[in-house]
Amino acid sequence: MLFRQLFEAETSTYTYLIADTTTQEAALVDPVIETVERDIKLVRELGLTLKYCLETHVHADHITGTAKLRELTGCAGMVPENAQVDCASDFIKHGDVIKVGGIPIQGIATLGHTDSHMAYLVNGDRVLTGDALLIRGCGRTDFQSGDAGTLYDSVMNNLFTLPDDTLVYPGHDYRGHTVSTIGEEKQWNPRFVGRNREQFIEFMNNLDLPNPKKIMEAVPANENCGAVLNK
Amino acid sequence: MLFRQLFEAETSTYTYLIADTTTQEAALVDPVIETVERDIKLVRELGLTLKYCLETHVHADHITGTAKLRELTGCAGMVPENAQVDCASDFIKHGDVIKVGGIPIQGIATLGHTDSHMAYLVNGDRVLTGDALLIRGCGRTDFQSGDAGTLYDSVMNNLFTLPDDTLVYPGHDYRGHTVSTIGEEKQWNPRFVGRNREQFIEFMNNLDLPNPKKIMEAVPANENCGAVLNK
Repeated sequence: MLFRQLFEAETSTYTYLIADTTTQEAALVDPVIETVERDIKLVRELGLTLKYCLETHVHADHITGTAKLRELTGCAGMVPENAQVDCASDFIKHGDVIKVGGIPIQGIATLGHTDSHMAYLVNGDRVLTGDALLIRGCGRTDFQSGDAGTLYDSVMNNLFTLPDDTLVYPGHDYRGHTVSTIGEEKQWNPRFVGRNREQFIEFMNNLDLPNPKKIMEAVPANENCGAVLNK
Repeated sequence: MLFRQLFEAETSTYTYLIADTTTQEAALVDPVIETVERDIKLVRELGLTLKYCLETHVHADHITGTAKLRELTGCAGMVPENAQVDCASDFIKHGDVIKVGGIPIQGIATLGHTDSHMAYLVNGDRVLTGDALLIRGCGRTDFQSGDAGTLYDSVMNNLFTLPDDTLVYPGHDYRGHTVSTIGEEKQWNPRFVGRNREQFIEFMNNLDLPNPKKIMEAVPANENCGAVLNK
């Protein structure tokens, strides 16, 4: 397996490239429109065939690169079930396994940051957590039908139940961390440690954060797979 | 082995944490003064004992975190031989192996970006290339006694001779790449591909780059292990 973490600095977003080095099939998870040229260049240099773009959710802070990548490569654009996206090639349900060559990518429903959100367990040993679980943090729950209690349940029941040595690769990081483990987050994530469900809900509902700068542009564009008018 | 790549966004610098998860001994390579608190917090959360801070070279773009980390933990501060640093705990020569628990970290002389520079081969399968070799790029050679011909020789003779599947972890990245391989850089690094030594020297000597913003502050501070007056 080839596994590459890629960073988009303006919105601190991680994109992941996963490929089977035998079949040369590849998938990108959470590509960003601004870094499509970089990502497609890398895919081509590595001699890969992009089969899938997967979204963890409909992003509010950046526009997905999926539409552009689909246009350039003919790859399928996959989104979590219940996402308000008409243009998806297909929808992924909890437990579904997508195969990239011989590499399994399994969807894990992790709602709460938004009302449609999938983490992806890659190769059984690493989980791309999107905005559900961040390193020593978690995604906000105050827009896009987010719900703090739902996020708490998703993390507790569907992520913190994975083996402790499962690597955690988040959708964003704002402090320069690149990777963690489930065991580490269970022990040290300050959003969850020492808070029960009720306390977590109260904490999250009082964060009082400003909206992401790009939300008015990003959400409608992402509901259209990242196809932006006049762009 | 635990291996963590950490990013400092202002100067796009990567710091590396390497630890033996059996003995809990750890080393940091190229720590940055601004992110010492983050790094020491991580070291403590992971239950590690910081034995070494290693520098790939005397940096011109940021101040090392070594003095602060040495003060906080009593770790040794190691620098490449010939570095103009009086305060180092010890100097590393080409071929020297430092052991972090059972993990070997071997110095590979890679002069040219500066006249004292060490890459570190960690665990035999990944090389921390500092500013000698970047992903699809390389460090500049126009100050601190840098020399383009020397850098060319270092990369050709001491890095591109490593096995193709050796992972390349650079000291910086400005485009959001996190890792590459020796094979990939031999095939795709535009600074080296299609240029002989002479052409490389001519190219590097005509880059005409502005000095790093922090050079006047960083170099003297780093020659003092990162101990900054009034800081």
